[in-house]
Amino acid sequence: MSVTFVDLLDYAGTFAFAISGIRMASEKKFDLFGAYIVGMATACGGGSMRDIFLGVSPFWMTKWIYLAITGLALVFYVFCHKFISKISSTIFLFDTIGLSLFAVVGFQKTIDAGFDYWVANVMGMCTGALGGVIRDILINEVPLIFRRDIYALACVFGGCVFAFALMMGLPNYLCQTACAISVIMIRMLAVHYHWQLPTLKDE
Amino acid sequence: MSVTFVDLLDYAGTFAFAISGIRMASEKKFDLFGAYIVGMATACGGGSMRDIFLGVSPFWMTKWIYLAITGLALVFYVFCHKFISKISSTIFLFDTIGLSLFAVVGFQKTIDAGFDYWVANVMGMCTGALGGVIRDILINEVPLIFRRDIYALACVFGGCVFAFALMMGLPNYLCQTACAISVIMIRMLAVHYHWQLPTLKDE
Amino acid sequence: MSVTFVDLLDYAGTFAFAISGIRMASEKKFDLFGAYIVGMATACGGGSMRDIFLGVSPFWMTKWIYLAITGLALVFYVFCHKFISKISSTIFLFDTIGLSLFAVVGFQKTIDAGFDYWVANVMGMCTGALGGVIRDILINEVPLIFRRDIYALACVFGGCVFAFALMMGLPNYLCQTACAISVIMIRMLAVHYHWQLPTLKDE
Repeated sequence: MSVTFVDLLDYAGTFAFAISGIRMASEKKFDLFGAYIVGMATACGGGSMRDIFLGVSPFWMTKWIYLAITGLALVFYVFCHKFISKISSTIFLFDTIGLSLFAVVGFQKTIDAGFDYWVANVMGMCTGALGGVIRDILINEVPLIFRRDIYALACVFGGCVFAFALMMGLPNYLCQTACAISVIMIRMLAVHYHWQLPTLKDE
Repeated sequence: MSVTFVDLLDYAGTFAFAISGIRMASEKKFDLFGAYIVGMATACGGGSMRDIFLGVSPFWMTKWIYLAITGLALVFYVFCHKFISKISSTIFLFDTIGLSLFAVVGFQKTIDAGFDYWVANVMGMCTGALGGVIRDILINEVPLIFRRDIYALACVFGGCVFAFALMMGLPNYLCQTACAISVIMIRMLAVHYHWQLPTLKDE
Repeated sequence: MSVTFVDLLDYAGTFAFAISGIRMASEKKFDLFGAYIVGMATACGGGSMRDIFLGVSPFWMTKWIYLAITGLALVFYVFCHKFISKISSTIFLFDTIGLSLFAVVGFQKTIDAGFDYWVANVMGMCTGALGGVIRDILINEVPLIFRRDIYALACVFGGCVFAFALMMGLPNYLCQTACAISVIMIRMLAVHYHWQLPTLKDE
């Protein structure tokens, strides 16, 4: 099994997503096994939903590495959770890279399956954002992404860039890069400037 | 893309289901994007579950119209939500039509896929009622249909009528009409006379 | 339809899982229909998730018996729920048998579909434990298995025994029996000695 640079980014993103699940599970006093499951669901839930929608085997069933990375994240959390707040900017970076990569993978896989660009855009968003929704359902909280931050919307913007680049006739790897960079940029700007969407009721 | 009368009913039902999701999301102070996702999940969640159970592509992935209708429902809600309580009977009508149509579509699609009548009945019920269950899970409330109103049961009754009409040898369009009318009738009677199923514990 | 001894164990397990769902639904004052759905989701949810992951029709769509057993469990609960606390050890026995059988079925079905042992182990665990997770999501509680008892882990241990027995070249029925016995043993020991996994935060 040869590992490419993109694989490494994927693994870093998986790790960051798993940490986010494990951290929230630990706040709910879940046991080790529960925390592992929530970590796994956060890291692989979005991609699994995408694969189920596309009618293919969930990606984590074909490579054991995702289970192992989640296990690694759990071990890391158990021994270093006091240390985690100090490296929160590194984890945020991993998380953002993960989000951008998940959006790219979701978009590409959907196009390869023969669907339209708009479906690919939705699937990119599902891949990036649904893991967090499943995490919040499992810990019995109102999903965070529905109330705060530009998160899923960064994926949607990246998907639009991907589609535009494809329509301009750019080579595939450039379209993917443009999409990833857009997601990262929007996400960073949103967090830095505290961008928020309006809520429906303000009274 | 030619639009039939049945399509129009389908779109009206989708609109009403989306409004119900958006309204409940707004009570939870979701942002615009969160409200859109909940509206979409309410309108398309039941049919998506059915399609996943049947092993086919979720219906909304083959036609962009459902995403557009949900967007329209969101715009409508943003600008007219003070107005909505005044047209609540129109929305109830749309919702009921939607429910009946979803039950018919779910039943028909399952039979076309080669399953038995009883599976078709369950799928008709899933199509009509699971969207509301997914909505309530997303806003972190106990699903409403498990505690109030004859809702899913109206679909089950309609499914029985459909199966009976098929066994009597009636032409397909008549079976569908009979099913739709039964669902609407049961639903209207249930709301008008405050029919409730008994709960398991009353102390 | 001839019924084997293994079928009978399967039905007993389904009955016990359905009772567990119905009981918790009744505590939330669900109506009869809601209780039925929660019972069905508890009994068949784990196997359905497995089948969706494997890309095959959910098992309960090919045999009506599971709907009937859930109905039977509902009737039994309605008329005998005062009696249930007295037979709780019988229900615990059924539940444990169900868990072990679900783990075996999940493992076997995944191997037959051509996946690796580790996927089969995950699927055995999903089959046994996800029904309870779906139940707790439907009644809007934090999933119990994430916080208490060795439950899903018993399935994982059984899956390891299954894989080991297969690698030793034992005939299939012996591998299955060894797996089932391991699950039952671990589960009984865990309950008897109050085995708990550590939680992530103790302060």
